[in-house]
Amino acid sequence: MKNTFGSDLSLTIFGESHGWAVGAVLDGMAAGVPVDEEFLAACMDKRRARGDGLSTPRVEADTVQFLSGVVNGHTTGTAIALMIENQNTRSGDYAKTADLLRPGHADYTAYAKYHGFQDARGGGHFSGRVTAALVAGGAVVLGALNRAGIDITTHIAECAGIADTRFALDDAAQLSAQVEALASKPEGFAVLDETVEDPMKTAIRAAGAEGDSVGGMLETAILGLPAGIGEPYFDSVESEIAHLAFSIPAVKGIEFGTGFGFAEMRGSEANDAFRMTPEGAVVTATNHNAGVNGGIANGMPVVFRTVIKPTPSIYKQQDTVDYIAKKDAQLSIQGRHDPCIVPRAAIVQTCAAALAVGDLLTARYGEAWMTRPTTFRKENE
Amino acid sequence: MKNTFGSDLSLTIFGESHGWAVGAVLDGMAAGVPVDEEFLAACMDKRRARGDGLSTPRVEADTVQFLSGVVNGHTTGTAIALMIENQNTRSGDYAKTADLLRPGHADYTAYAKYHGFQDARGGGHFSGRVTAALVAGGAVVLGALNRAGIDITTHIAECAGIADTRFALDDAAQLSAQVEALASKPEGFAVLDETVEDPMKTAIRAAGAEGDSVGGMLETAILGLPAGIGEPYFDSVESEIAHLAFSIPAVKGIEFGTGFGFAEMRGSEANDAFRMTPEGAVVTATNHNAGVNGGIANGMPVVFRTVIKPTPSIYKQQDTVDYIAKKDAQLSIQGRHDPCIVPRAAIVQTCAAALAVGDLLTARYGEAWMTRPTTFRKENE
Amino acid sequence: MKNTFGSDLSLTIFGESHGWAVGAVLDGMAAGVPVDEEFLAACMDKRRARGDGLSTPRVEADTVQFLSGVVNGHTTGTAIALMIENQNTRSGDYAKTADLLRPGHADYTAYAKYHGFQDARGGGHFSGRVTAALVAGGAVVLGALNRAGIDITTHIAECAGIADTRFALDDAAQLSAQVEALASKPEGFAVLDETVEDPMKTAIRAAGAEGDSVGGMLETAILGLPAGIGEPYFDSVESEIAHLAFSIPAVKGIEFGTGFGFAEMRGSEANDAFRMTPEGAVVTATNHNAGVNGGIANGMPVVFRTVIKPTPSIYKQQDTVDYIAKKDAQLSIQGRHDPCIVPRAAIVQTCAAALAVGDLLTARYGEAWMTRPTTFRKENE
Amino acid sequence: MKNTFGSDLSLTIFGESHGWAVGAVLDGMAAGVPVDEEFLAACMDKRRARGDGLSTPRVEADTVQFLSGVVNGHTTGTAIALMIENQNTRSGDYAKTADLLRPGHADYTAYAKYHGFQDARGGGHFSGRVTAALVAGGAVVLGALNRAGIDITTHIAECAGIADTRFALDDAAQLSAQVEALASKPEGFAVLDETVEDPMKTAIRAAGAEGDSVGGMLETAILGLPAGIGEPYFDSVESEIAHLAFSIPAVKGIEFGTGFGFAEMRGSEANDAFRMTPEGAVVTATNHNAGVNGGIANGMPVVFRTVIKPTPSIYKQQDTVDYIAKKDAQLSIQGRHDPCIVPRAAIVQTCAAALAVGDLLTARYGEAWMTRPTTFRKENE
Repeated sequence: MKNTFGSDLSLTIFGESHGWAVGAVLDGMAAGVPVDEEFLAACMDKRRARGDGLSTPRVEADTVQFLSGVVNGHTTGTAIALMIENQNTRSGDYAKTADLLRPGHADYTAYAKYHGFQDARGGGHFSGRVTAALVAGGAVVLGALNRAGIDITTHIAECAGIADTRFALDDAAQLSAQVEALASKPEGFAVLDETVEDPMKTAIRAAGAEGDSVGGMLETAILGLPAGIGEPYFDSVESEIAHLAFSIPAVKGIEFGTGFGFAEMRGSEANDAFRMTPEGAVVTATNHNAGVNGGIANGMPVVFRTVIKPTPSIYKQQDTVDYIAKKDAQLSIQGRHDPCIVPRAAIVQTCAAALAVGDLLTARYGEAWMTRPTTFRKENE
Repeated sequence: MKNTFGSDLSLTIFGESHGWAVGAVLDGMAAGVPVDEEFLAACMDKRRARGDGLSTPRVEADTVQFLSGVVNGHTTGTAIALMIENQNTRSGDYAKTADLLRPGHADYTAYAKYHGFQDARGGGHFSGRVTAALVAGGAVVLGALNRAGIDITTHIAECAGIADTRFALDDAAQLSAQVEALASKPEGFAVLDETVEDPMKTAIRAAGAEGDSVGGMLETAILGLPAGIGEPYFDSVESEIAHLAFSIPAVKGIEFGTGFGFAEMRGSEANDAFRMTPEGAVVTATNHNAGVNGGIANGMPVVFRTVIKPTPSIYKQQDTVDYIAKKDAQLSIQGRHDPCIVPRAAIVQTCAAALAVGDLLTARYGEAWMTRPTTFRKENE
Repeated sequence: MKNTFGSDLSLTIFGESHGWAVGAVLDGMAAGVPVDEEFLAACMDKRRARGDGLSTPRVEADTVQFLSGVVNGHTTGTAIALMIENQNTRSGDYAKTADLLRPGHADYTAYAKYHGFQDARGGGHFSGRVTAALVAGGAVVLGALNRAGIDITTHIAECAGIADTRFALDDAAQLSAQVEALASKPEGFAVLDETVEDPMKTAIRAAGAEGDSVGGMLETAILGLPAGIGEPYFDSVESEIAHLAFSIPAVKGIEFGTGFGFAEMRGSEANDAFRMTPEGAVVTATNHNAGVNGGIANGMPVVFRTVIKPTPSIYKQQDTVDYIAKKDAQLSIQGRHDPCIVPRAAIVQTCAAALAVGDLLTARYGEAWMTRPTTFRKENE
Repeated sequence: MKNTFGSDLSLTIFGESHGWAVGAVLDGMAAGVPVDEEFLAACMDKRRARGDGLSTPRVEADTVQFLSGVVNGHTTGTAIALMIENQNTRSGDYAKTADLLRPGHADYTAYAKYHGFQDARGGGHFSGRVTAALVAGGAVVLGALNRAGIDITTHIAECAGIADTRFALDDAAQLSAQVEALASKPEGFAVLDETVEDPMKTAIRAAGAEGDSVGGMLETAILGLPAGIGEPYFDSVESEIAHLAFSIPAVKGIEFGTGFGFAEMRGSEANDAFRMTPEGAVVTATNHNAGVNGGIANGMPVVFRTVIKPTPSIYKQQDTVDYIAKKDAQLSIQGRHDPCIVPRAAIVQTCAAALAVGDLLTARYGEAWMTRPTTFRKENE
């Protein structure tokens, strides 16, 4: 279905940038799962624009309002509808250039698909603003996953050509320390190596000052996923995560573990040797396969990276087409835009992964992982 | 669903390496679509092992038998069930090492998921042999796509560290010529630059001779996809293709167009300028976004690359675990294996893409693209 | 999925009786479909309580607010989110008897399923109020169906033991006249035989005055459904309609055409003979099978009846259980209730049928029936 | 999806009456579930024609062959493909009358849908023979349900106007005894009151002797369904069961519990009073609602009835249309047919209900009810 993902735990998203609200319906949460408004607000805050030269000056409170499914801080077991009202909209900015297709944007494909009936204001349904609904819905699931012993964290692996330290794929202890360190960072610019933060910010602002934008990479780690989750083919862990990752605007590639590095490896290097721990658990000595063998989690950390293309909205003049006049034209984009969306997209990717993992867990365990998370956690440690 | 992909045009796969048969049910094909047995056989032949030192000595005829849904060379409009019987099975090879988890394989995850009830013979359901069913089903769809003016082709972009020429992302005419050249190659080793074929084969055989294996990359081009196909979020063209690509065993990464190269680009470079053709069609001057804007096809070629990890089955001795004895062990894999599956996987990727595209077309046009392909083709030229 | 119906054209509903709002997300409508607010309001009005002794004194305006997907009176092609705020809620009425399970209601099953976390106020998600969302979403589809030449109408076939005239199953011309006559009735008490209206109303009020309630039957006709819609098995016209009909609270049975009367017929009576019209169209001489052969529409009118059980909320004292105290108890229900929901349920059934038909049409024709309804209408006349 | 039902536990069916085979893919069964071939054969045998004047002289062995997913009498956890080869086909019988649309059959709707490409031999995909696949797949699920403490049984409630005793809706102990009595009957003519068996058989043979056919009713009881199964709206217990019931050819109506009798009842009669058992369990004093409140199982027996229309294949001459010559015609059906399919349809209905119940259980409990059936059974007693 077009705006619905997941079969056992599903999210349906809706909304346009300048419409009444963006929002989502999260269906399949068991009854009695705590919905921590503070945690939710913290997730929303990570996605929020700050008007600090790094992101768009369109700053909104992004308060999540539950229309149904949550009473007294707990899920009721029925569909959870939530919305985030759109408050700070300046549609006038867009009207001026409505006929000029913005390169790298969905203006042309929207015409092709919706024959002119699309809501063109602010990018409409294509706006990154819709990801606020994805974060809100995903954060509810993420809270439940945390209680069941599963952590998901994303950091900026690369931005404007500047690379952060990578997650320690082959060292589970160090990876856990990295994930913990990121959790203690209060604010939304998630890097492992603090010395790259300022250079990245400087590079973003420099691009913005030139009316241009930059891209980057995000890296996500999922810890605590029990062995046995996922399916051999169409519902493989990788398929589900990739499906959702490509639903995030600007993602144009994804790789798991050693990823594209596998192309130049031999099997004897690429295979992760199995080892038995003193406690009798099976682990792998390395983790090139990123915790997934044959589509199914093997209990090791799942690590993946996505590439985020540079924000297509730039102020520099560009060649384009006037779709109504049917002729070539020049465009200088107005409006308020991010010179880089990589920092804000990190929490979106975390929440997208939470939805994929939540759906796969529910397929195997039904509601049990949600209704008895402590038991579930102990059985899988 | 676990073994089903697609909602409007769906494929359900089944089978184990050493069971009675592998097969599939393809549902959603309109009535009256020609099923060209010769074309089907040619697709199956591309995936077939040849016992030539490049692939496994397990050579099978791979005849596709239709159990339902096809009469007199045409679809009847009801579910198409097909099977490929398993003939050449030597389960004994596996029994010897059944307790030793093969690194890089799904042996351990199968234990975790199926508690010892999995069919372990020859990798069971995890065997690459199941992709024969995916090819058979996908080839039926691919034939229908071809009639509707849509071509899909895959070549070996890299193998054993040796790179083929890339598809001409920014030159639609040259790309068409490349696709045509590949179509005229009779046999299953698909490279654009013929001078890399022998070096690749030599490198594969060399790895095999050492009891090792190699990985590589595949690149697929989809030509003729009409603008407007796909959805902004969960059913984006990229999401659907990636979902299926990660269902192919050994795929660990995928990128569209410029892919991971976007990380170091600026928006002014990454955006594909729109231009108007003399005939009044909108095209892009470059094609970094690989024919997809905002999840929706823009009419330009869709190009993507996947990375294929080295075959995990190698003869070299490896560290592992004896799962039953619960202790560390050493393993030397027996059986018959491919030192490189990249060449055989090319047609699998083509057919997986065909399934994704077929599902998206049917969502938008219902059965019309199948029942009136010539009309459809003309309207989209 | 729990709160989602349909694959090509899907409705996701949410809301609790005393929560912030009830609502729905309708996904899969093509772009550019007119959304007639007046028609929508008329449909909502038919479901609305009137406080006239026939229905609950809880009277609400039931204004449908579109959160997304509709701009300038037309669909944008993206997900349509709509909500109806809850205004007139008196939760106090319920708090008094929260521990006493109301017979015939979902109080006990809600405890069994949601472990006490359900929103118990006013029946929560089980409240008939949620059908307002079903009507709102269904009415958008119904408007599109009407433009494509398909009419759906429901009347009160029986109420409090008093029977209305039945739809003329075997006389298409008379049936059309009946449907037309119902359309011209301005208000929400849909009967064919006007002489039964007052007796029915009197009987309902009499039951209400005794603190009791009555049941009845609804009969729905679908005219203009093109031959060829539906599938032989799981997506048969009957399966889809029945699935949705049983989603309407209080429906406990459904029959198509001659329905349960078939049990005592012979094949020679039950078969509908085919006849050729002078214009070369195939029709049936009788319509026992209600326009469906082998799960697929044959072009004749589809007629079905559902039974609506008496409203379980009655003021009479009843035996029940105190679920918290774990002992038998007596209950006299407070609150505001309908002595009969049959009249209000008529439009709910019409809209449920519209959703089923819309999903089936989209599966076959994609968006074409919505984007070119006039062409579609002509081709199917 | 057209030929697939269920999301967590799904069945995909395929096959034509005179094709190679009919069959199914059952997906979602956990690993390690016993597949009792004897039980399976017994279920198949109940559906089998006997050539005894009650059913068609086309007698087949109906051996179920597993192509995948079952090894050593247990499920492997992957997709279970099964097929039943068609052996005894006499297509010539049909060729003679191919242009004459058989009244009550899907001949015309098949033309409308498949434009002449349908497999017309023996009714093709519309043939009741396809229900053999439904029985085979459903029987695997039914076996698992039985181990988890859930029984499903169907009897002939009415046939040729002769009524059997009804299931004791309001007396759980008597109902259990009835179900047990039916289980001990070795053969496929399931009636509660043995004195009606001969009259029914006589009436069927009499109709057959006149070249005519008769209809009837089936009644199914589901015992042991845990309270809390099902959903308030679209996945209600009633919706799921009805969806599948209408997938059985010839079913034209379904009612739960008191069913259409509710139309003339008052709420004070229709409500099932709750009572507390000495053991602290909640039960209902009566069971008009057939174990379902608000779409969710309340732990009482679920009882429903379907009406089966008379077999449309009759030898009597009928009015019809020659579809190719486009003119009215007369038809005398040849071939081998059942004068009554009610007795053979009983097991089909049982298996259809098993699929619905299995899907709902899996949605709530994941694989737990299959992998630990004894624990599950104890927790729900």
